Amino acid sequence: MSPNSSKCLITLHLPCTIYKEVIEEERRGRFLGKSVQIIPHITDEIKRRIRGLAKAKGLDVLVVECGGTVGDIESLPFLEAFRQMRMEEGTSKTLFLHVSLAPELAVVGEMKTKPTQHSVQEMRRIGLQPDVIVVRGTKRLPSEAKEKISLFASVPVENVISNPDVPSIYLVPQTLEEEGLMKAVQRQLRFRGAKLNTRRWNEV
Amino acid sequence: MSPNSSKCLITLHLPCTIYKEVIEEERRGRFLGKSVQIIPHITDEIKRRIRGLAKAKGLDVLVVECGGTVGDIESLPFLEAFRQMRMEEGTSKTLFLHVSLAPELAVVGEMKTKPTQHSVQEMRRIGLQPDVIVVRGTKRLPSEAKEKISLFASVPVENVISNPDVPSIYLVPQTLEEEGLMKAVQRQLRFRGAKLNTRRWNEV
Amino acid sequence: MSPNSSKCLITLHLPCTIYKEVIEEERRGRFLGKSVQIIPHITDEIKRRIRGLAKAKGLDVLVVECGGTVGDIESLPFLEAFRQMRMEEGTSKTLFLHVSLAPELAVVGEMKTKPTQHSVQEMRRIGLQPDVIVVRGTKRLPSEAKEKISLFASVPVENVISNPDVPSIYLVPQTLEEEGLMKAVQRQLRFRGAKLNTRRWNEV
Amino acid sequence: MSPNSSKCLITLHLPCTIYKEVIEEERRGRFLGKSVQIIPHITDEIKRRIRGLAKAKGLDVLVVECGGTVGDIESLPFLEAFRQMRMEEGTSKTLFLHVSLAPELAVVGEMKTKPTQHSVQEMRRIGLQPDVIVVRGTKRLPSEAKEKISLFASVPVENVISNPDVPSIYLVPQTLEEEGLMKAVQRQLRFRGAKLNTRRWNEV
Repeated sequence: MSPNSSKCLITLHLPCTIYKEVIEEERRGRFLGKSVQIIPHITDEIKRRIRGLAKAKGLDVLVVECGGTVGDIESLPFLEAFRQMRMEEGTSKTLFLHVSLAPELAVVGEMKTKPTQHSVQEMRRIGLQPDVIVVRGTKRLPSEAKEKISLFASVPVENVISNPDVPSIYLVPQTLEEEGLMKAVQRQLRFRGAKLNTRRWNEV
Repeated sequence: MSPNSSKCLITLHLPCTIYKEVIEEERRGRFLGKSVQIIPHITDEIKRRIRGLAKAKGLDVLVVECGGTVGDIESLPFLEAFRQMRMEEGTSKTLFLHVSLAPELAVVGEMKTKPTQHSVQEMRRIGLQPDVIVVRGTKRLPSEAKEKISLFASVPVENVISNPDVPSIYLVPQTLEEEGLMKAVQRQLRFRGAKLNTRRWNEV
Repeated sequence: MSPNSSKCLITLHLPCTIYKEVIEEERRGRFLGKSVQIIPHITDEIKRRIRGLAKAKGLDVLVVECGGTVGDIESLPFLEAFRQMRMEEGTSKTLFLHVSLAPELAVVGEMKTKPTQHSVQEMRRIGLQPDVIVVRGTKRLPSEAKEKISLFASVPVENVISNPDVPSIYLVPQTLEEEGLMKAVQRQLRFRGAKLNTRRWNEV
Repeated sequence: MSPNSSKCLITLHLPCTIYKEVIEEERRGRFLGKSVQIIPHITDEIKRRIRGLAKAKGLDVLVVECGGTVGDIESLPFLEAFRQMRMEEGTSKTLFLHVSLAPELAVVGEMKTKPTQHSVQEMRRIGLQPDVIVVRGTKRLPSEAKEKISLFASVPVENVISNPDVPSIYLVPQTLEEEGLMKAVQRQLRFRGAKLNTRRWNEV
């Protein structure tokens, strides 16, 4: 993988109209008269699009962002498709990154890890064990909080990445790099020699 | 309510194409440019159809059957619509009847109530507290098992209805009547004087 | 109920040693040789203590606080005992008040209601439908957020109580009163004429 | 590992009195004045006993059976301890075997896999991804049902083991061997050359 490659990261936004298109294909007879089911018809279509885009663009890495919150009805078919892809592609070709929030009770000043615990439980229930957890918060997560999250989420502590508020959005990549996000990704997806090319960022 | 009325029970099968139609309405501008969301767009459409049918046919009671198993992705939007209808219509105008299975371990001969416990938990998580539980099984549920289900499901014991295998499908209504299903429904929906008209059944 | 009565509110902290004492009673033969089970032995003991205290002190209202977060292993036997008490005592003699947190993403400035949605789901799964939800947060919850919580939690909007940060802890009762907490409690537990006696508070 | 070794399999029944003993140790000051918590005090004690027994007896393999049903309050501290052991020991030193039931609707004759799907979901929520699933049932599970379970449970199809009713309990080990249970265990725990010593069984 060339770290200078402009094709390493493209975010795929899966349109909600996936339902409509699959149903129209049913009308044209694609499913041989069977009625559309979320599993496998919608989930297969989601997987087909993800793989299709990665192939069409010749990507090394495709970042698929699933908006909303784990457990929302809207995102369940997508998460189910991701679960299947993990089984089909294996652990070294897929990586589940979970973004959670550690709210701070202003009065107490403590960052709460319980919401992360519960969203991880919900992810697991659906069948997704996160590989990396990025924790949003007003300030940097103390190391005890990272260890706590590591323990209950069954995630190595170096894969718990703090993502605190920073003065400028342009500082976010550098913060994540310092926290070890890139290394965590490289370990799992087995890149060698890839470095975050922050030169252009720093010029901004 | 006239118990002889032929219009008291109609089962509504909600077609899967509800997604497609809602998405097409979006295209025609119904949602003022907002993209379709399962909540509220799909759920509102489900409620609109249920109420529309009840009104169009002048029904006293409309039985809406939601197939599959609680927790299936497919049925979540429907269950969410039902949850909202309960809030909007109240307890005396809606009734949640949950059908579960009490498997029998042939070797042991005991009917297991755990699967019912877990499906009730799952229903509750989604926001539906069952009012009546009909328990399928090879034989009639003993009263201790009914009490157990009543306790963990927060359902009165007389609303736990055993639905055992019977020699002929034509005996099912009579069995349910003997088990008190009709009374449970009447208590909650406040019918007076209605009786199960089994004359025609018995003639069969 | 006399609102001036000093005996209206006592918080019961259930000691963790409840396990030990129940197990010791088993040793003394109380359970006739049966081994201790969380349900019903521990849960029965919890209920016995709650009722015992209310009776011994002649209380009109007993506030039982269950610390921690819904879903914690520690609190499950207590929540199960509360669920049973609701069934045994009815809705007009018990009230489930759920305290949740609406974290604010400082950068965005929006108060997030998703954590409340998920903790309510978890409560329901366990069998507790909250009657009142008190939402902690840095600022007062806007009315749209209250309506959102009301809808997904199946709780009347006037029972969604905002509990924002206030300059002094002595202002908390007044804030809750203004938000309608007392009225919500009175409606359900059917007090008449009771008023929050804030005279002494205001003197502080 | 010597397959003839009589010490390869011992089942550990963890007594319920673990609570009492831990609480008594607290009294003797072991936790330096901190009150007993299920996590970490009870879970640490469970792990200590499991490891202690394996060491004291010089075992190659220790089978720990957790009775009841996934999700029961009683078993949660044990499952949490197992989850931690997996993290601490790794995948090649621990194996989660989940026993589920595929009930058969006599009238329909189909074996239902939904209860397995839901118990696996519940296991995952708690943090345990099963490695092997043994499915009890009146008859042998057809291969399509195995594939279905494999897909939704994220378990290789050869690790889905059918455990049908057999005329004699002495035929159970042979059935499990034929279904590939031993091979599945060997693959994960990396035994070499071990064979099920069924000679004595067959003599019975």
